[in-house]
Amino acid sequence: MIRTLSILGSTGSVGRSTVALLDDAPAGAFQVEALVANRDVARLAAQARQLNARLAVVADPACYGALRDALAGSGIEAAAGPDAVIAAAARPVDWTMAAIVGAAGLPATLAALSRGGVLALANKESLVCAGDIVLATARAAGATLLPVDSEHNAIFQALEARGGGADPYAAVEKIVLTASGGPCRTMSMAEMAAVTPEAAVRHPVWSMGAKISIDSATMMNKGLELIEAVRLFPVPEQRVEVLVHPQSTVHGLVQYADGSVVAQLGTPDMRTPIAHALAWPARMAASVPRLDLVALARLDFFAPDAVRFPALRLAREALRAGGGATTILNAANEAAVGLFLDRRLGFLDIAAVVEETLTRLGAPAVADLSAILALDGAARIEAARIAAERAAA
Amino acid sequence: MIRTLSILGSTGSVGRSTVALLDDAPAGAFQVEALVANRDVARLAAQARQLNARLAVVADPACYGALRDALAGSGIEAAAGPDAVIAAAARPVDWTMAAIVGAAGLPATLAALSRGGVLALANKESLVCAGDIVLATARAAGATLLPVDSEHNAIFQALEARGGGADPYAAVEKIVLTASGGPCRTMSMAEMAAVTPEAAVRHPVWSMGAKISIDSATMMNKGLELIEAVRLFPVPEQRVEVLVHPQSTVHGLVQYADGSVVAQLGTPDMRTPIAHALAWPARMAASVPRLDLVALARLDFFAPDAVRFPALRLAREALRAGGGATTILNAANEAAVGLFLDRRLGFLDIAAVVEETLTRLGAPAVADLSAILALDGAARIEAARIAAERAAA
Repeated sequence: MIRTLSILGSTGSVGRSTVALLDDAPAGAFQVEALVANRDVARLAAQARQLNARLAVVADPACYGALRDALAGSGIEAAAGPDAVIAAAARPVDWTMAAIVGAAGLPATLAALSRGGVLALANKESLVCAGDIVLATARAAGATLLPVDSEHNAIFQALEARGGGADPYAAVEKIVLTASGGPCRTMSMAEMAAVTPEAAVRHPVWSMGAKISIDSATMMNKGLELIEAVRLFPVPEQRVEVLVHPQSTVHGLVQYADGSVVAQLGTPDMRTPIAHALAWPARMAASVPRLDLVALARLDFFAPDAVRFPALRLAREALRAGGGATTILNAANEAAVGLFLDRRLGFLDIAAVVEETLTRLGAPAVADLSAILALDGAARIEAARIAAERAAA
Repeated sequence: MIRTLSILGSTGSVGRSTVALLDDAPAGAFQVEALVANRDVARLAAQARQLNARLAVVADPACYGALRDALAGSGIEAAAGPDAVIAAAARPVDWTMAAIVGAAGLPATLAALSRGGVLALANKESLVCAGDIVLATARAAGATLLPVDSEHNAIFQALEARGGGADPYAAVEKIVLTASGGPCRTMSMAEMAAVTPEAAVRHPVWSMGAKISIDSATMMNKGLELIEAVRLFPVPEQRVEVLVHPQSTVHGLVQYADGSVVAQLGTPDMRTPIAHALAWPARMAASVPRLDLVALARLDFFAPDAVRFPALRLAREALRAGGGATTILNAANEAAVGLFLDRRLGFLDIAAVVEETLTRLGAPAVADLSAILALDGAARIEAARIAAERAAA
């Protein structure tokens, strides 16, 4: 049976890994409907030809001519602009990869979810910033959400061993997200205060973009993942824990009522969780390096330091506050990280700006997507204002 | 729904843990049909009263009077002798714990398997010494075998994440059994040559009987488990590996074709795998200490040393030889361990005696249970002869 699919965000890191897996897959296993990118026309056109896609879409309307020219003679349809992105996401397929980074990916993610099927979610902002709407849309359309973040994919796999019974989640005592600890794991508070953008993006294990690397350094990435976990899996926030594990080999664990802890491990390579999502509920081959525990020799585990990394506490507080608090957390963090990368905010000030934004804006109710997007904008403005006040003080 | 069950070997270590779990379980979850023990009448009678069993059986006919007296007035039926053991095992129940140690447990295990249902197998000798017959009996009766050995139970749990598809085991690349390495893990060859029974039974992690403790010290326990794994799970011997892991926290791992490795972890406590088997395919609560990775802080992994621990090689050779070779391996090992415990054989001579017995007896075909029991006896005699020759040399 051929699985039809679309990739929203095909030229980014997760998108490129997905394309590489499809290129390696046996002929006849997958048929690509649409590929969507922001503005990397050359790569998008090459991917569309390589995978024989039916449609390629650039979000930036100014790139339309270049895309049409790059696809000339291929028979592949070209389109551009935000509406074309949503129309592409809404085309009927069995499986969609939602990998457009940030809040920008939200409308396309919702469009894809609305027509049911399986949605592999690499865009964690969707669940953090608009969790209730994403989940309600998936429920209404009977769509299945598969997490692609390595930690959540690991937990999804570990939950496959939950067993049956009247309530198969009743025996889930605890979900544990692992964290590498990032480049500041062993720094003192004084060293952290002086961290530069260059030092903070140097992640010890994963190779990632600048925004997520800074989130890893502040551990806000784990805070966002904590929120994602509570929305993906039927467990309350108190039962989701974070464990620092510098080797990033154990990606996630689930503790059951009989004392069993089931975990998923692997080399830190995004192709594994993407392949898991691509083939689910079966499994497919992926040519990633295999885990070698003898070569690794040891795995270490620590409790996270709540003093140096307040982001985990902020994420829990936002979850407990409810309403739009996690939308505010995410937006304020994006704004603060941007200011840090522009050298207009200190490293330790990122969390301070997020906390102050949460304090000022509270947890207003958010009824629909437009309310969420408005709150997202307001939180970015407030965060910038707070940062400016701190700079002036 | 009440699950009816019997325990074969209720007064041994696994049997006592099973009784403790049943005693803690909610009323109405389980109904005990038969409890079978060797000759510990006092404990057997107490268990039968505690769990309100219908029948209690001692294997030793000389104990019948004592059992009948101990159960007087309880309404619990008493019986004794080998035939009564088999008749008890054959009584219809949903679930049976097969925990009679050694080849002695084989006839009762087969009787229980013959009437279908679920059989929790703690008697690893059944699969090592009579694997083909056990598996054929289970298949013919439509019985389900659930492993209770912590390593195999871990692998069973990790295989729950194998996914569906035409061949759900196609994506299983590798099964990994962990081994604590036992009390001789860091000893030199010279130190191992001088090991006494007292030193060898001092297991660093698990609290076990003398025979299995010696098997752990020689790593023959892992050799027997390797054979058990190949018979329980649909993977060839080349895809089953052994990994030394002194903390005995990760009990077993399964590597899949997408690079995922799924593992089961837990504190070293037999109640967890027993509870898993008792409740399967659901899960039940067990009051075992929970795994605390922060307190453990680190997990170590090593390749096994093939020179100091030849038992793993002998197990693989016996598997490849086929026929009755694993029956010979198991019987020769039981005989050699007995001689070591009696100080009539050196520690390093255990494996040497097993290897020589395998060389002399080869891999004769074994068509049925009587052929297996005859070969088992012949191997014990040959092993004793070889040990005597070595003592005389």
